[in-house]
Amino acid sequence: MKHSVTFTPDNVSIEMDQDTTLYKAAKAAGAYVLSSCGGKGNCGKCKVIIKKGETDSGKSRAFLSDEEVKRGYVLACHTGARSDVTVEIPPESRMQAKHKIATGAKTDALFHLMETAGGCLESRIRRVYLEVTPPTLDDNISDYERVRRALDEKGFDASHLHLNYLVLKKLPLVLREQDWKCTVSLVQVGEVLEVLNIYPGDASRARYGAAVDIGTTTVVVYLVDMTTGNIINTASTYNTQVKCGDDVITRIVYATEMNGLQELQGLIVENVNAMLIELAAKSNISPDMIDYIVAAGNTTMAHLFYGIDPQHLREEPYIPAATFFPLVRGKSLGLKADPQALLYSMPNVASYVGGDITAGVLVSQIHRSEKNSLFIDIGTNGEIVLGNKDWLVTAACSAGPAFEGSGIKFGMRAMEGAIEEVEIDPRTFECNYQVIGDVKPVGICGSGMIDTLAEMYLTGVIDQKGKIREEIGSKRIRKGETGLEYVLAWRVESAVKKEIVLTEVDLDNLIRAKAAIYAGFATLLSQMGMTFADIDKLYIAGGFGRYIDVERAITIGMLPDLPAEKFQFLGNTSIMGAYFSLLCDKLRHEAEDIAKKMTYIELSVSRDFMDEYLSAMFLPHTNLDSFPTVKKELEKRTKRE
Amino acid sequence: MKHSVTFTPDNVSIEMDQDTTLYKAAKAAGAYVLSSCGGKGNCGKCKVIIKKGETDSGKSRAFLSDEEVKRGYVLACHTGARSDVTVEIPPESRMQAKHKIATGAKTDALFHLMETAGGCLESRIRRVYLEVTPPTLDDNISDYERVRRALDEKGFDASHLHLNYLVLKKLPLVLREQDWKCTVSLVQVGEVLEVLNIYPGDASRARYGAAVDIGTTTVVVYLVDMTTGNIINTASTYNTQVKCGDDVITRIVYATEMNGLQELQGLIVENVNAMLIELAAKSNISPDMIDYIVAAGNTTMAHLFYGIDPQHLREEPYIPAATFFPLVRGKSLGLKADPQALLYSMPNVASYVGGDITAGVLVSQIHRSEKNSLFIDIGTNGEIVLGNKDWLVTAACSAGPAFEGSGIKFGMRAMEGAIEEVEIDPRTFECNYQVIGDVKPVGICGSGMIDTLAEMYLTGVIDQKGKIREEIGSKRIRKGETGLEYVLAWRVESAVKKEIVLTEVDLDNLIRAKAAIYAGFATLLSQMGMTFADIDKLYIAGGFGRYIDVERAITIGMLPDLPAEKFQFLGNTSIMGAYFSLLCDKLRHEAEDIAKKMTYIELSVSRDFMDEYLSAMFLPHTNLDSFPTVKKELEKRTKRE
Repeated sequence: MKHSVTFTPDNVSIEMDQDTTLYKAAKAAGAYVLSSCGGKGNCGKCKVIIKKGETDSGKSRAFLSDEEVKRGYVLACHTGARSDVTVEIPPESRMQAKHKIATGAKTDALFHLMETAGGCLESRIRRVYLEVTPPTLDDNISDYERVRRALDEKGFDASHLHLNYLVLKKLPLVLREQDWKCTVSLVQVGEVLEVLNIYPGDASRARYGAAVDIGTTTVVVYLVDMTTGNIINTASTYNTQVKCGDDVITRIVYATEMNGLQELQGLIVENVNAMLIELAAKSNISPDMIDYIVAAGNTTMAHLFYGIDPQHLREEPYIPAATFFPLVRGKSLGLKADPQALLYSMPNVASYVGGDITAGVLVSQIHRSEKNSLFIDIGTNGEIVLGNKDWLVTAACSAGPAFEGSGIKFGMRAMEGAIEEVEIDPRTFECNYQVIGDVKPVGICGSGMIDTLAEMYLTGVIDQKGKIREEIGSKRIRKGETGLEYVLAWRVESAVKKEIVLTEVDLDNLIRAKAAIYAGFATLLSQMGMTFADIDKLYIAGGFGRYIDVERAITIGMLPDLPAEKFQFLGNTSIMGAYFSLLCDKLRHEAEDIAKKMTYIELSVSRDFMDEYLSAMFLPHTNLDSFPTVKKELEKRTKRE
Repeated sequence: MKHSVTFTPDNVSIEMDQDTTLYKAAKAAGAYVLSSCGGKGNCGKCKVIIKKGETDSGKSRAFLSDEEVKRGYVLACHTGARSDVTVEIPPESRMQAKHKIATGAKTDALFHLMETAGGCLESRIRRVYLEVTPPTLDDNISDYERVRRALDEKGFDASHLHLNYLVLKKLPLVLREQDWKCTVSLVQVGEVLEVLNIYPGDASRARYGAAVDIGTTTVVVYLVDMTTGNIINTASTYNTQVKCGDDVITRIVYATEMNGLQELQGLIVENVNAMLIELAAKSNISPDMIDYIVAAGNTTMAHLFYGIDPQHLREEPYIPAATFFPLVRGKSLGLKADPQALLYSMPNVASYVGGDITAGVLVSQIHRSEKNSLFIDIGTNGEIVLGNKDWLVTAACSAGPAFEGSGIKFGMRAMEGAIEEVEIDPRTFECNYQVIGDVKPVGICGSGMIDTLAEMYLTGVIDQKGKIREEIGSKRIRKGETGLEYVLAWRVESAVKKEIVLTEVDLDNLIRAKAAIYAGFATLLSQMGMTFADIDKLYIAGGFGRYIDVERAITIGMLPDLPAEKFQFLGNTSIMGAYFSLLCDKLRHEAEDIAKKMTYIELSVSRDFMDEYLSAMFLPHTNLDSFPTVKKELEKRTKRE
């Protein structure tokens, strides 16, 4: 038996079977409901409110407060319909449109890099305008040979020329369309010079490329004029794979289920295509004028983008299908571009260090420096690189997506309604906060969490272990359903008609996340017999990274206690590296050298890492002496009291 | 308004629009009606009999005798329906199933050629069985790199290894399916070693290939066991493109019309696929075990097979899209084989000398001989090669398809019902004939035409110009609608309820055809400053060639007057050359060298050729002294009288 279900506030309806869930129905209806676990009942993010009708409200009240239950909240993934129902998706469970995605690229950095690589604006795909000599009875070689001869005359080594089927098919027509004037796009693979496509007349200037950053959470696309190197327009969106799970592990699991892989690939390709179409429209070009696409993403994202089974990435010994993906036709994946467009992926290093990190190192230039640098990309995961011009080591510290909101009761991404800055009064323990978009708060994002954690620690609301000190006697401290919690925003202030709190469970999750990052740094250093004192620069990349207050991050022990001038924010280095490699083939080669040079250290089986991790499970660290500025601040505050 | 039309004897019916023709309706219904011109009203082959109903019997009575008109004959291409109609397709207009298609290949010739080429049974595509070392935490390179390493260990240079998208997608699964044992198929393109496909376990022995001869009239396929070199099974069929026109020119014209190219490509691909499926079924294999296909055909057939616009082949200066076609995936054309199967085409020389001729030269070995040889492939066209191990010249003599029945009133292919041998009594002028299949005659095929022409000439029924000598007073000589004609079979003897005749128009067409062939030989020789005396061997290839009586062909002046031992029949050298190149990559290279070496001479603009042609428009030739044996026979006969 089927029931009709209507989701508000979007007012979309769908018929649903009795044995399906509201979560799946919402997905099918296109009314997105947040979920970190992909509908498995493990995250508690997919809360919805039953406004009308009977439901089978499920086996579990987990993740729901008494008050929520009273107000009709259920978990969408645990609830079926027993009659026609109306379901409200509350603000905290919605994916919102206004967000902050790091999209910036510095073109001056590109030109500097190109120059120092001895390079120029020369992409892997070249376009060459040819004025072919028309045939006569005495000069009657074939169209194919005629193109070869014209290329030869232009100085190309066309002795191993290859035309693919599509080009061959249209060759006679295109050559004669504009009186033997034509443009070919070429790619060199080994000795073979391949004619990728042929266009009538002079099409050597109408060349566009796309750089794509496929993040676990966000996707960014640049539309690039390949003749000038200029970024014409940029677009960004959330990776709609998010509805199948927040982090890479959940998505890998999802991919192994029936049609899961196909669905995940379809979603990300759809994301990219939508942006390609949007960018092309904005720029008054056709998407099929894009003939080269360079993508960067973590290894799991790359597998999913190509539709390759990612299952072995998560099973010991953690083996990717490929780290260096071969050049393929964009149309193989269904990308909207020139039918012959090539897709290149920034080379991956290992299962948990992907092409986004190779791109990041390229942009950071730590591989060219005499001095030792650290590089961290804080996205949904946290990948670290240590090295200099002679060597590079890398690791993934599996910090998890806590700072993106996952596993945090009111956690959310840096979008409208997120608390992003917090201050706590050391005497009253009252707090002030800033919300993205200056609206009523819906939840708290990563930078807000770091702020809160740092403030709670410095003001003594929590102890070194992250436990709330009930004894300080603040009305903001109360017993919640999972233990003690601190109220950031009262019900009247919030957009969700609930108090927005940070619970001890949340605090524990955040400390685990920050400990993993710090332990990652420390382990790489100790593997190389080094300490933080040997580090000249610490580069912070990634969407979330841009909004981190370094001082606060040091306070909680997420970042090492280095002088402020050693930190440098790079923004979204994944898209920048993809963009550089798109435009300059020498930099693409440099990126491949970087990937080959990086030694991957598997932290999940490292005893060193486990030791470092346990030591970092305190605020800021078991050894307070390794955080002298924090120690000093604490002493200062103690004196003041 | 629509009418129903039923075609007998097949009893297939179809609804047809008022503005379409019976010819198109028959095509659509799958009831094939012969046509040389593709339904343009130029050939008179598509005669059908209206048995019931009203027709708009058209603008033209051309090609129809009074008697035929009386009996209800119309040209299907000129006739529409005005009511529901029943249409009989008479035997002479049907495509018949029993036929003679030359399919033989001599495998001993292959092994001899391979040996002398310093070759071995090594195809362009190789299969290699790999036992890949399973990964561990310490040896955690990607699946891709693991395959590369395994190939490296087998002695391959895998430094430029390429995996295509389909292989990449299935790589993780296939590697683990049989415990890291797998088989790869490889092709080397320049420095790049490409993994075409990967199969679980040991699939190195289950390798099949197909050789395909695409003739204008017939298509032959060999299924070949690539590990032994054995031909497992062969199949042949008519090229169903015939319904769009008999000769290459008509098909080129057809291809330029709306969807014509697509239709022609679809027909030939369907022909090849039907045979691949049939051969696979017969041999208890799956068609997708075929991973390499080598095709040979004339340049027009190659263009149509690949779906490339052939229009410029027939317009001065006669330019093909390509002579050397690039290696493409069989699936690009829709071929039923391994999804990654490669298709290679024997290299063409020019617009009218194709891969079938390159294949023929390879098989004839004239390119390896110290002595001078002539090679002719008499198919729907007539291509000639002259040369030795130092040089090769070639030309197409555009003999036209007269010997295949086109332009000859009762002409037909060498199929059941065709008069194939004829003798005329020199005193009574009565004739005896032999019919293929020992049935009542339907028409006359090429060998029968040559016989008749020779006999008519030797017995004095016709003069040197091919004019019927009415004055000899035979009842077999009569006035027909187009002038004088000779009755080969009386109405009671024939299967078509009509006298089977050879008209003066037919005789004229046959003399033009034979003159073109002889002029082709003569022109090539004179271009090289040679005479027939310099020729050591004359190789005759092609389906029709096999049934020629050399003595009779000399009598009419189609073949030069050389001693019998200098003639050698080779059969279908097109399929043989394709088969050799399929199995032995060294021979494929040799074929490419042959194609590069051949100098093409365009006869259609040659004054020499025109002179030779005019001289050859007599029986046997203007200069009887160049045919001493014919002269002697004539003298003998004159004496006898």
